[in-house]
Amino acid sequence: MNSIVSDGVGEWLSGTGPESDIVMSTRIRLARNVASYPFLSRIAAPRRSELERLLKGRLEKADFAGSINYHNLTEISALERQCLVERHLISREHEEAEGDRGVALGADESLSIMVNEEDHLRLQVLRSGFQVDAAWEQLRNVDDRLESSIDYAFSTRFGYLTACPTNVGTGLRVSVMLHLPALVLSKTIKRVFRHITDINLAVRGFYGEGTQPSGDFFQISNQVTLGKSEEEIIRHIASHVPQIIKHERIKREQLIEKNRLKFEDRVWRAYGMLERARSITSEETMDYLSAVRMGVHLGLIDTIPIGLVNEFFILTQPAHLQLQEDRELDAEERNQKRANLIRERLAKYR
Amino acid sequence: MNSIVSDGVGEWLSGTGPESDIVMSTRIRLARNVASYPFLSRIAAPRRSELERLLKGRLEKADFAGSINYHNLTEISALERQCLVERHLISREHEEAEGDRGVALGADESLSIMVNEEDHLRLQVLRSGFQVDAAWEQLRNVDDRLESSIDYAFSTRFGYLTACPTNVGTGLRVSVMLHLPALVLSKTIKRVFRHITDINLAVRGFYGEGTQPSGDFFQISNQVTLGKSEEEIIRHIASHVPQIIKHERIKREQLIEKNRLKFEDRVWRAYGMLERARSITSEETMDYLSAVRMGVHLGLIDTIPIGLVNEFFILTQPAHLQLQEDRELDAEERNQKRANLIRERLAKYR
Repeated sequence: MNSIVSDGVGEWLSGTGPESDIVMSTRIRLARNVASYPFLSRIAAPRRSELERLLKGRLEKADFAGSINYHNLTEISALERQCLVERHLISREHEEAEGDRGVALGADESLSIMVNEEDHLRLQVLRSGFQVDAAWEQLRNVDDRLESSIDYAFSTRFGYLTACPTNVGTGLRVSVMLHLPALVLSKTIKRVFRHITDINLAVRGFYGEGTQPSGDFFQISNQVTLGKSEEEIIRHIASHVPQIIKHERIKREQLIEKNRLKFEDRVWRAYGMLERARSITSEETMDYLSAVRMGVHLGLIDTIPIGLVNEFFILTQPAHLQLQEDRELDAEERNQKRANLIRERLAKYR
Repeated sequence: MNSIVSDGVGEWLSGTGPESDIVMSTRIRLARNVASYPFLSRIAAPRRSELERLLKGRLEKADFAGSINYHNLTEISALERQCLVERHLISREHEEAEGDRGVALGADESLSIMVNEEDHLRLQVLRSGFQVDAAWEQLRNVDDRLESSIDYAFSTRFGYLTACPTNVGTGLRVSVMLHLPALVLSKTIKRVFRHITDINLAVRGFYGEGTQPSGDFFQISNQVTLGKSEEEIIRHIASHVPQIIKHERIKREQLIEKNRLKFEDRVWRAYGMLERARSITSEETMDYLSAVRMGVHLGLIDTIPIGLVNEFFILTQPAHLQLQEDRELDAEERNQKRANLIRERLAKYR
């Protein structure tokens, strides 16, 4: 690949975090704006560029734990930008927007800071497994350090001011990405979703807002940012996720107890398809990877590391495949390239 | 296994005969009856037993090209009898019948002679690939040698007399087992069948009369036994098979030309399923083996010998699976055992 998108993938795909059999990742983000600049919906292009340069300077000077690399998105290719979306480091909107805007990335991609997205700053920490406290600790530290050099738009009545009213207050969104294949297989996922919605949490797909669930991944996140403290918001979601984890674990056990042979067969057939296909769509890949991921975590497949499976979810996305070839590929070419990539990597574990 | 059903399988599955990419096997059989005994539909049990002993003696004394082993079917287990059916060495009816009856088997299973089936004697030669002449040469020789010690029921007007009028005359049936996956895939198989029926040939499935086509295998055989010489009957079928072979070859080439990637993908996914499944039905197995067989013959898969693929068609049949365990297995147990057998053998070719 190249300098912007590293050969490997982020720490959050290592599969090492707590509860990582079911929790793929924990993400926390804060929305922040600079007091002396208008919101981006009302800013003139020159001021927008000035703001971008200002924030770039502040970010590069800030004393984070670990170095960061800043990129102006107008200076990198569309494919590279799309890769950042696929890695959950920038939003689809940020990729598609125009004008001066950027992203600062920490070395292991656990930290990413968008400049001139919907808000002037979107600070994100993304960690493997269920790590709400560690992620919040890291993000709060980043936020504090930035606040020492930037005058944030803040109201004593409302809290942090944001471009969209749904983010006002704390500007906080906590998202936990859950892998729930057994709840899907046992058709109890809808009941779980109803419960989640009832307690004011939102459910989204693998790529967040507006995306379909894929590969049995679901992002659970808070809806409310105002009227509660950061700790209350985090506690709310953190206290409900373990129930879902428990529910998924029970269903996995039940599926095995009910018909172990059928279950193993399902998992290994998915593996066989990934291992041998010559052309494979993104949807199929997500489905097979989902079964294999569950199989590895249940010890049914013990020949491959879980990190390999997790990486496939990202490396087989369209922009990643195209960046490897450094050109656009049509759907059929992508399907072939995707199959080749998976097959060649799995062949090492025969 | 045991002495009756050998560990390997017959010569006809070696995949070495002419046109063996498309012709699995050539089978010729003759129906013969002993002049001094009634047909089996009218025979009393003691006479039937006497006839069986008489023919056993004649067969064991006959000077065939290789040694034969004779078995009275009442003295072997039902599972062993079913295995002989699965190997195309005796008929389903012969397996299920009662009373003294037997089979004489040549060493490589190319020769099998049923005693007290529908007729007193059914002589069969089964060879790999398209070998009508060689099979007929071998069978005629067997027939001549038996005729020197047995007085066949023969009418100068009708020819050889048989229990069922459809066999009277020559008592000859020539069957060519064709593997026609490309004609099936391209949906042109029905047109081919209409043509075959038009020229007075019959089409049957993998296990002959009354069975469904399976794994894209089709047996083409003559309908007429009377009013033509043996050579004429053989010439008739032998002259039409090459057209079907040519047609199948053209379709295979067209499928590859049209979308090589899709075609390779189909073949390799079938391979992946066989390689990894933990439970697999007979129907699925036939389908996947069919794709793999075609893939090997087209050089898309070059890691396994064709004999292995051909053997799987027989070794994965229910009685073969059960005989290995020496007990009856229910459907789920068979599916598991079938998957294990295929998986373990394929694992040697990784």
